[in-house]
Amino acid sequence: MEGNQSNVAAASPNGVSSVPAGQELAMQTLSYSSQPPSPNTPSTPHQQSRNSIRLLSGILAVNILLLGSALVCGAAFSKVKVLSDEEIHIYLTILLILTTAWMIFYMVHTASRTQAVLYKDSHAGPIWLRGGLVLFGVASLIMDVFKTGYSTGKLNCESPVKVTFPLVQLVFVVVQTYFLWVHSKDCVQKQSNITGCGLMLTLATNLMLWMSAVTDESLHQTREEASKPNGSFDHLRDGSMFFKAGRSGCECTHGACEIFEKGFYYLYPFNIEYSLFASAMTYVMWKNIGREIDDCSPHKISFRTKGVVFGVIVGLLVVIAGLGVFVVYEVEVTGDASTERVLIMYYTFCIVGLSLMSLASLAGSVIYRFDKRTVVSTKNPTRSLDVALLLGAALGQFLISYFSIVAIVAEKATRTVSMLNLTCSCLIILQLCLQNLFIIEGLHKQPYHAEPPVVSVVFINEGTSRSNPYSPSLKNDNDEPSPVENSLERSSHSHDFSSTTHSSSSRMSWKRRALKEISGFLLLCNVIFWIIPAFGARPQFENGLEEWVYGFSMWVAIVNIGLPFGIFYRMHSVASLFEVYLTS
Amino acid sequence: MEGNQSNVAAASPNGVSSVPAGQELAMQTLSYSSQPPSPNTPSTPHQQSRNSIRLLSGILAVNILLLGSALVCGAAFSKVKVLSDEEIHIYLTILLILTTAWMIFYMVHTASRTQAVLYKDSHAGPIWLRGGLVLFGVASLIMDVFKTGYSTGKLNCESPVKVTFPLVQLVFVVVQTYFLWVHSKDCVQKQSNITGCGLMLTLATNLMLWMSAVTDESLHQTREEASKPNGSFDHLRDGSMFFKAGRSGCECTHGACEIFEKGFYYLYPFNIEYSLFASAMTYVMWKNIGREIDDCSPHKISFRTKGVVFGVIVGLLVVIAGLGVFVVYEVEVTGDASTERVLIMYYTFCIVGLSLMSLASLAGSVIYRFDKRTVVSTKNPTRSLDVALLLGAALGQFLISYFSIVAIVAEKATRTVSMLNLTCSCLIILQLCLQNLFIIEGLHKQPYHAEPPVVSVVFINEGTSRSNPYSPSLKNDNDEPSPVENSLERSSHSHDFSSTTHSSSSRMSWKRRALKEISGFLLLCNVIFWIIPAFGARPQFENGLEEWVYGFSMWVAIVNIGLPFGIFYRMHSVASLFEVYLTS
Repeated sequence: MEGNQSNVAAASPNGVSSVPAGQELAMQTLSYSSQPPSPNTPSTPHQQSRNSIRLLSGILAVNILLLGSALVCGAAFSKVKVLSDEEIHIYLTILLILTTAWMIFYMVHTASRTQAVLYKDSHAGPIWLRGGLVLFGVASLIMDVFKTGYSTGKLNCESPVKVTFPLVQLVFVVVQTYFLWVHSKDCVQKQSNITGCGLMLTLATNLMLWMSAVTDESLHQTREEASKPNGSFDHLRDGSMFFKAGRSGCECTHGACEIFEKGFYYLYPFNIEYSLFASAMTYVMWKNIGREIDDCSPHKISFRTKGVVFGVIVGLLVVIAGLGVFVVYEVEVTGDASTERVLIMYYTFCIVGLSLMSLASLAGSVIYRFDKRTVVSTKNPTRSLDVALLLGAALGQFLISYFSIVAIVAEKATRTVSMLNLTCSCLIILQLCLQNLFIIEGLHKQPYHAEPPVVSVVFINEGTSRSNPYSPSLKNDNDEPSPVENSLERSSHSHDFSSTTHSSSSRMSWKRRALKEISGFLLLCNVIFWIIPAFGARPQFENGLEEWVYGFSMWVAIVNIGLPFGIFYRMHSVASLFEVYLTS
Repeated sequence: MEGNQSNVAAASPNGVSSVPAGQELAMQTLSYSSQPPSPNTPSTPHQQSRNSIRLLSGILAVNILLLGSALVCGAAFSKVKVLSDEEIHIYLTILLILTTAWMIFYMVHTASRTQAVLYKDSHAGPIWLRGGLVLFGVASLIMDVFKTGYSTGKLNCESPVKVTFPLVQLVFVVVQTYFLWVHSKDCVQKQSNITGCGLMLTLATNLMLWMSAVTDESLHQTREEASKPNGSFDHLRDGSMFFKAGRSGCECTHGACEIFEKGFYYLYPFNIEYSLFASAMTYVMWKNIGREIDDCSPHKISFRTKGVVFGVIVGLLVVIAGLGVFVVYEVEVTGDASTERVLIMYYTFCIVGLSLMSLASLAGSVIYRFDKRTVVSTKNPTRSLDVALLLGAALGQFLISYFSIVAIVAEKATRTVSMLNLTCSCLIILQLCLQNLFIIEGLHKQPYHAEPPVVSVVFINEGTSRSNPYSPSLKNDNDEPSPVENSLERSSHSHDFSSTTHSSSSRMSWKRRALKEISGFLLLCNVIFWIIPAFGARPQFENGLEEWVYGFSMWVAIVNIGLPFGIFYRMHSVASLFEVYLTS
């Protein structure tokens, strides 16, 4: 849905842009570029201040993060008990209080002045990101309540910081979710110095929360594994870098402690996801500081499923099969005897699903090769960011897959489960690469509706760029080229364009339909591949081989870092595929 | 020296640019932007292919790197001997052979066709980077010879891959150094698909070499530490993640083995630095694929030291003091009794030097506040990359400093050495932040020589933008604004400009001199802070506190990752400060 309006700039036919169109493009690129010397305003001081804000706030964030990393590493990896969780919790509490105070200040300040935010970026903070934020925010709130309950029970023997921290985090999550819901589209112009530092503080706080949650979760899992009565990894236990000297012997004063503990460890992944979502949104807000854009609400493209049957049906079949596998997995995986059977079922489902998805993505990319639609060439920071997030989030899955492949190949494992795991890991890499290529190509294509055959008539009859509905809306009319020059330039291309449109109109329909089928199918498949890990399936730990090769603590760290990014990737690709579906 | 010519675009007086100047700027921004839809050529296919090259080659590099990381981690961290060095060496050898083959193919192909490379980026591959590459390349060659000698002696009991690898690396270093020396400025247009993948392969290979060298070096140091007869970290030994079961009992067949081993471990840091340099240069080449730029050789700004006395003298004093400290450090640090005395001397020198540097940078930034020179606002990818490399490389020092600070504060250490170390670490962070601000502000300022008082006369008398020596050189003259409009716009600003020039001409001289003094002083100081770590001083390990807090293996990893970036940072900042010196 996002990104359609601003991308209509390059709608000039056949990719050959005339000189005046080039000038228009130039002006629009400037208004989008990160350093916009707009022609009528004194650009240099504005841009200078924008650069220095970026630099200062960036340095601030780096310092917060590195100090935090040293604290987390010191507490988690150190054998000597010099640093404890307490220092980290104090540090995080201070960060949370500062960030919450700044967000409240920002909201009050923005509400009190009518002219505080002049521009809004309609592509920032799309609904799936905000919806996900609220969803994971609610889970984080419950986690904080559980944590507070658990820590209250241990108040007699543990530091009061452990009770304060979840309470402060609770307030922070509420304030931040509201803040990002309301303000994620802001392009701040006033007081941008404070705002830049505030946003970087928020970003650093979220990344610190992410880092500490990943470490906590990994520590907890390693402890659980080590405390198993007949765990198969006893030999690894004393060497593990995460392993601490076990529980402290601090007893809980109320009975609900165990429930609270189980509850909040179950909710940890949602909290990790929440931090990632908030980081992404804060980063986009920070990038938008000082940006001056014409806010046009995106084109309303009607969502129709008419005619798209095959892709949706196959996709729904995959979803239903996946849900079945997920339920069986969750029910049976605890039993020792049935684990192998369940894993074989799980991997088989993955292999079938991923193969279909890879083939679909490949077919989509092939169709794009024959697709004559122009590529949107205007610079759009939100779109570039979208692509970067998609590629970056895929790294998480890549990481896990490559470590699995190396472990299985090195071990020369020949069990059925291992071979299936190997095939599955290879397919994940292949599928992610192909799907990324398909999505990125799709996002950069001109929407189909922008090329009706009447365009060539409009081009010839109307001289000025204003009356051409496919030219970008410009803020200044000063440098409009002469109508004569314009129509001359355009008429020279109009023949090519109309011929292309007419000759391809008959084939266009099957191409469009195929693209819609493919994106619909991929969308549904990504939903099920999101649901399975998001709601707790962790075949990476049931398999046992990677744990043995890398050591439990290291494998836990890899999975806990990689998997949340993988979940983020699936959600993001669902949103992107929806956009591809609409524009096809 | 670099970056002067292209930055003259925003020389419009007082930062208020007229509309025609805005148009020129727009065109220039486009020619510099990463997605240039240049007005007279069919832009879309060109840009589309450029984007897809980036995407494909980026995915290739990510896959090579992740597979390599899994191999390195598996071999280094795993307790179980499933993966060994052999697999990594085979993988690296394959990568080296492929990369060497591609580089030879590229050079032959470029030499055989006259039109193979049409554009050159004069800012890419500056002399300090190429010089550093050759310097570290020579050290790497010697290291490879030593390694081959060492491995030949152990051929009876170790894999032949260990002899093949250094020999292949030797050929690779020779070919790559020549390749980057000759071709680092190329903006490839033809066969850019293969070139993109080839360059990403080269980048990935260099990063893999860096990763494997850092791991090797860390493993070696941990082994050395563990094998010390009365090492003070015995209690850490068995838990260390790098620690392997000691030497394999494989005896060397010739007598020079020990010399070879000592030699190549001494040369490791140079090889690590070589990989970083090559990576930076390859990355710039990759970014330049498909870029079409007017190649203008940079302005010859004469290098004069006349009048700059104070900064240079103080700088030289710091250099001489530093060399003295370095020699004493290297001679005395082996003795156990004198270590503390030497460390106190070393830290005192650092504190004095860094304080002076921080004050100088601060003074420079304050002078910039009063400096009315316009900021260069055109988009220049090489300049942005320069700044990114400067900020990124500083992270290495930040990392080490923050880990030191946390260790000392957590341990509540009160020894003189610890307090000095704490002060020194804090000062490093402060100094790097201030120096980065100073350098980046300096790099973005218009060179002083670009604003002679005659400019206003030129502006009024000559109408067209071609004859204005401060307007950017454009490739197309089609959209030149009308002379009348131009002179009107310009004359309205000429008064402001000439008045500024005249009123500030008397004060300009002390500002310029102060900036030259400061950049000269900082340059010399950075040279000595480069020499000390580059030639082997490692006070981070003599101190002992951080090792105790984080564990030896972890601290070794942090220092081995952070320090090469720190050394790269100092070299890069020397080059940047030289540029600031010239343009002030």
